[in-house]
Amino acid sequence: MPHIDLLPGIPGIRGLLVFRPETATPLGELAEVLMRGPGTLTRAEREMIAAHVSYRNRCHFCRSSHAAIAATHLGAREEDFALLEQVQRDPASAPISDKMKALLAIAGLVQEDGKRVTSEAIARARLAGATDVELHDTVLIAAAFCMFNRYVDGLDTWQPDDPAIYRESGRINAELGYVNRDFSAPVRSR
Amino acid sequence: MPHIDLLPGIPGIRGLLVFRPETATPLGELAEVLMRGPGTLTRAEREMIAAHVSYRNRCHFCRSSHAAIAATHLGAREEDFALLEQVQRDPASAPISDKMKALLAIAGLVQEDGKRVTSEAIARARLAGATDVELHDTVLIAAAFCMFNRYVDGLDTWQPDDPAIYRESGRINAELGYVNRDFSAPVRSR
Repeated sequence: MPHIDLLPGIPGIRGLLVFRPETATPLGELAEVLMRGPGTLTRAEREMIAAHVSYRNRCHFCRSSHAAIAATHLGAREEDFALLEQVQRDPASAPISDKMKALLAIAGLVQEDGKRVTSEAIARARLAGATDVELHDTVLIAAAFCMFNRYVDGLDTWQPDDPAIYRESGRINAELGYVNRDFSAPVRSR
Repeated sequence: MPHIDLLPGIPGIRGLLVFRPETATPLGELAEVLMRGPGTLTRAEREMIAAHVSYRNRCHFCRSSHAAIAATHLGAREEDFALLEQVQRDPASAPISDKMKALLAIAGLVQEDGKRVTSEAIARARLAGATDVELHDTVLIAAAFCMFNRYVDGLDTWQPDDPAIYRESGRINAELGYVNRDFSAPVRSR
């Protein structure tokens, strides 16, 4: 039961965006530019960072949503969804680039506390090819999901269990993105 | 020494906003609507929440900046700056309303983890007069500063010690807000 009076049947952050359109606009624009705007990390790589941080914050809605979005950007095969499970839980063992392993390690440090990011963690990512902008974007994506996760959990929003809901919304998000969308339609398990 | 190549002499988040204008725009718009847009919490009350959360995250730049902004909105007397020191460290003992004490307690829970916000903490704030929108805004401000703090600390930005720098920038921020500003001028201690 959410802590405030949200429309029923609208999961996670979507109910909050409908409740407070004033803040929904810049939040959507932030997600759009950060996850889909100019940058050299792929959309799938950015969504992996979001899913990993959300997993570490134990935010079921966000981790399920962004894992599904990342897997969709990769091709939406069963192996893509399986990869995202591994990236959430243990990126060091996942079949991804050394650069992404190093960036996900930085994201994990940011999730704990920004001050935990060490020069060593940064040097490792640089050695694997990460640029300044990629380091910046990794830290900001990780920080932003520490916001989104707390927003979604702090108001105790409805977070469906059914994985099919996240796969379907992930498919739509990968196509349409984060802005100029109507989030007010209720969601139902099939 | 920042982890990425930022312009020297531009403190805290300002150097990051100059480094990456694409994300600076929605971040500024989020801060503007959240801290100064439509809502029933005063600007000083919203900045108190930002300062308290940033203190709890031990982000020197953010706590000093937002304490100075809040104190400026209250009148910029020495007692206003002293009040903000108390609100950062121990809001329960500060001479503020019961509603603000209850909202700051919720903000403190969000800083730890969104899932720590209890029905009891919400009920206490409601009993003291908090509305749904005020509860929403408190949770989102607290969550947003968990982002801003991690962004500023995670890239190891320059965070001046001199309180006069924060008082001066607080005065300017209270007047001009968070958008349509040039953050690229270096700052110096006097």
